[in-house]
Amino acid sequence: MTTMEKIQEIRDSRWFSNLTTFIILAYASVLGFKTIGEVETNYALFLQFADVFVTIYFVFEIAIKMVAEKKFINFFKSGWNVFDFVIVVITLLPLEQSGFAAIARMLRVFRVLRLFTARPELKAIIDMLIKAIPSIIDIVILMFIIFYIYAIVGNFYFHDLPSGLWKDFLVSMLTLFRVLTFEDWTDVMYEAMEVYPWAWVYFVSFVIIAAFVFFNLFVAVIIGEMQKIQESDFHDEMHEDSKKLDVLLLEIKGLREEVKQLKEKKE
Amino acid sequence: MTTMEKIQEIRDSRWFSNLTTFIILAYASVLGFKTIGEVETNYALFLQFADVFVTIYFVFEIAIKMVAEKKFINFFKSGWNVFDFVIVVITLLPLEQSGFAAIARMLRVFRVLRLFTARPELKAIIDMLIKAIPSIIDIVILMFIIFYIYAIVGNFYFHDLPSGLWKDFLVSMLTLFRVLTFEDWTDVMYEAMEVYPWAWVYFVSFVIIAAFVFFNLFVAVIIGEMQKIQESDFHDEMHEDSKKLDVLLLEIKGLREEVKQLKEKKE
Amino acid sequence: MTTMEKIQEIRDSRWFSNLTTFIILAYASVLGFKTIGEVETNYALFLQFADVFVTIYFVFEIAIKMVAEKKFINFFKSGWNVFDFVIVVITLLPLEQSGFAAIARMLRVFRVLRLFTARPELKAIIDMLIKAIPSIIDIVILMFIIFYIYAIVGNFYFHDLPSGLWKDFLVSMLTLFRVLTFEDWTDVMYEAMEVYPWAWVYFVSFVIIAAFVFFNLFVAVIIGEMQKIQESDFHDEMHEDSKKLDVLLLEIKGLREEVKQLKEKKE
Amino acid sequence: MTTMEKIQEIRDSRWFSNLTTFIILAYASVLGFKTIGEVETNYALFLQFADVFVTIYFVFEIAIKMVAEKKFINFFKSGWNVFDFVIVVITLLPLEQSGFAAIARMLRVFRVLRLFTARPELKAIIDMLIKAIPSIIDIVILMFIIFYIYAIVGNFYFHDLPSGLWKDFLVSMLTLFRVLTFEDWTDVMYEAMEVYPWAWVYFVSFVIIAAFVFFNLFVAVIIGEMQKIQESDFHDEMHEDSKKLDVLLLEIKGLREEVKQLKEKKE
Repeated sequence: MTTMEKIQEIRDSRWFSNLTTFIILAYASVLGFKTIGEVETNYALFLQFADVFVTIYFVFEIAIKMVAEKKFINFFKSGWNVFDFVIVVITLLPLEQSGFAAIARMLRVFRVLRLFTARPELKAIIDMLIKAIPSIIDIVILMFIIFYIYAIVGNFYFHDLPSGLWKDFLVSMLTLFRVLTFEDWTDVMYEAMEVYPWAWVYFVSFVIIAAFVFFNLFVAVIIGEMQKIQESDFHDEMHEDSKKLDVLLLEIKGLREEVKQLKEKKE
Repeated sequence: MTTMEKIQEIRDSRWFSNLTTFIILAYASVLGFKTIGEVETNYALFLQFADVFVTIYFVFEIAIKMVAEKKFINFFKSGWNVFDFVIVVITLLPLEQSGFAAIARMLRVFRVLRLFTARPELKAIIDMLIKAIPSIIDIVILMFIIFYIYAIVGNFYFHDLPSGLWKDFLVSMLTLFRVLTFEDWTDVMYEAMEVYPWAWVYFVSFVIIAAFVFFNLFVAVIIGEMQKIQESDFHDEMHEDSKKLDVLLLEIKGLREEVKQLKEKKE
Repeated sequence: MTTMEKIQEIRDSRWFSNLTTFIILAYASVLGFKTIGEVETNYALFLQFADVFVTIYFVFEIAIKMVAEKKFINFFKSGWNVFDFVIVVITLLPLEQSGFAAIARMLRVFRVLRLFTARPELKAIIDMLIKAIPSIIDIVILMFIIFYIYAIVGNFYFHDLPSGLWKDFLVSMLTLFRVLTFEDWTDVMYEAMEVYPWAWVYFVSFVIIAAFVFFNLFVAVIIGEMQKIQESDFHDEMHEDSKKLDVLLLEIKGLREEVKQLKEKKE
Repeated sequence: MTTMEKIQEIRDSRWFSNLTTFIILAYASVLGFKTIGEVETNYALFLQFADVFVTIYFVFEIAIKMVAEKKFINFFKSGWNVFDFVIVVITLLPLEQSGFAAIARMLRVFRVLRLFTARPELKAIIDMLIKAIPSIIDIVILMFIIFYIYAIVGNFYFHDLPSGLWKDFLVSMLTLFRVLTFEDWTDVMYEAMEVYPWAWVYFVSFVIIAAFVFFNLFVAVIIGEMQKIQESDFHDEMHEDSKKLDVLLLEIKGLREEVKQLKEKKE
């Protein structure tokens, strides 16, 4: 086994990915507890050490991944590797000493995103979620249309209400999003009903239409996914059986032909 | 290629539908931002120009669709075309100058609904949603019965409560709808429990019954859709296999008959 | 066609069921609007007339259903008929004149329940819902255990909180039900956290456990229903195919036997 | 039938499990009503009696289960038996007389957990729920990452808000959990928007991302379960049919071979 193969083995091994997961989680906890006041002063040195250690480990880990590729350029062909690389490079920038200390502290948080690349299962889930986006793009447009019309109408009628929940188009959109989550939506409605007693039609119709669209979206996605499975995985098998039947039919027809010849010879 | 064919090609082309989508979305944004006070004064001229431009584009687009039909009357045979036509005609009416300026502004909003006809995917979703209505009509009647009985009972017992949430039948229905969305439903309940300590039975039973009905509705719709798919798409294939088996059986029986004749001849 | 057959035809006809549905809905609307104060005084006579008319129609309708049966006793063999009969008899009792006027008014509301028997689709849904109960009975017991333990623990620790939300076992159960619907549950939690800073563990764990159980219940019911369909409807067809294959195999074995005999004779 | 077999029959009988269920439920009710003040003083003796009775019954029941095993050690091989044993032993400890009376009262509540072992259906549901955990472990990690990043960012920007909802990392996590349940999440948002007008981006994006992840999780679990069923139960049957087809093909090929030999002999 060459050095190259050993490095590749390390890169693909489960314990290496588990080690990275563990280090990220430990570092994430440290970052989290840092925000609790009294901890920051007592353990400052420890926290600084953890920071340096994780930085070194990340550089070391990404180096292994780079070296393990036959051609250096292949490393950047995977979107996930680029993602890793960008996070490591950003957290290497000496922003802490410059005037961007606050931003630097924020950026460190995104190291936790490396959990995605450390665990193959999470990569798969993220890939699945990204793949699910196109199937709901038209539902999003539909929801936008519903929101848009209700926001314009709501803003038109209710823009002078004292709560200011309809004062311009964007605020109306936000208020409608709030109504969609059922969060104190009756407060919004009762306020509008004091001026327009029929305002409940606006709110109840919005809630019912939005809920109905969501309900059908849900059913459509489940059914769509099911159909995909049945077509790919299951029909394959059926087609195989169907082909066997065709072979059988051919065999029997051949057989019948031979029996016919036998009979003809006899006569 | 005749002029007619060229026009039909334009009408059916993806870029034409995308252009219409883009113009509607741009116009919708303009309408939306119009509601933010300071914009209205500064960009008044621009907004007026956008309005005129969209009106001309819509007339132009609907003209293409009309001309592309072999017989003019065919245009009105599609429900979606009638829908388009009504929206364009309404927004052409010179209401702005008359006393109906407010209504005219409202109607302009419905131009956004043209997104449905601009995007074939949205047409399909809307058609699907409309088709889904009959399958839930009886659930709606069932929910109405539950609401009705609880509204009458609630109005009977609680109509004197200071909040006025049960003061007549319609208000009671609205209050129950609010309870169904879990929106501050305990406030309604605690108020009732001060007069009738057992009022929690009324509210808890309503929440559980309504939730149970919805839960089963959900399951029933998913299962129903699944069954439809399996019956149409999948059973077709099974029936095909089943028919092949019948042919096979016939072939074999024929074969056996011939072998029998062979044997009989021999004897 | 005998008179009997004519009556049976009327009973089973769609227009008769639609007429009953319409009358019940109209009566229900009248009952509903009765609760709006000013209506009651103006239209008192009309309402009284509606009441008498519906009573007579119901008696007439149930008489048709009774007469249509060959044996009178058969009428009472259907649970739905008994249900109808009880509602009609109760609303015939002359309670209005006696001291039970309030109860009589309440009972009239239950006439709306006759919608179930008027529409066959609703009967089917109700039957389905009743059949769905056993499949969730153990989930209900499970939820009861979770509620019970959390209620006892909550009552034990929080029974002295000023809001009185945990003052005894039953009130604690009600408070937990409220937490389950996410209705102002943080108010309950923040109150408890002032005395026990770790109380969030109690609430967050309750929410997560209850949601997890519900989530799995949902999945289990959908999957269970699916399995039932596949086993009954779909496997039937598969078994049929499987049987055809068995017949085929038998035929071919028989054929082979005959060919063997043919060969043996030859030798 | 030996004494051993009789004991085993009792242990496995339905009435024994129903009796245990009934006794636990009765005892649970007694424990529940105990918390209502006035009851405690009047029925103190009765409650004490119930306590002693249940303790004796539990010891008796677990003795039957122990005796019914051929080897005593087998009893402890089932996780559920160990669970039972621990609960019975703990409630036998004479803590009531010692200083741990409060803890003893708490522990008694856990006797209700014995309902799990008394009802085989509940055992099955619990086993199912435990088996469902691994399939969602990566979704939990994903949710943790989303919560973590939002908590750090929220704590960074909002930690000085007067409500103290973001004062440290753990409190921020709790606040985000509250936002996820839509519980007064707009109050949290409006407070943040007073300092950072763009804070709605933070909240709306969190709600949408978390909901999208949950939505897909739901669909994925249902689809996953479906696939499992189809693969195990249903494909078995298909494979059986597929094997029958293979046998058929072999038979026919054999037959054809024999007919060929027949023909060759003839020539």
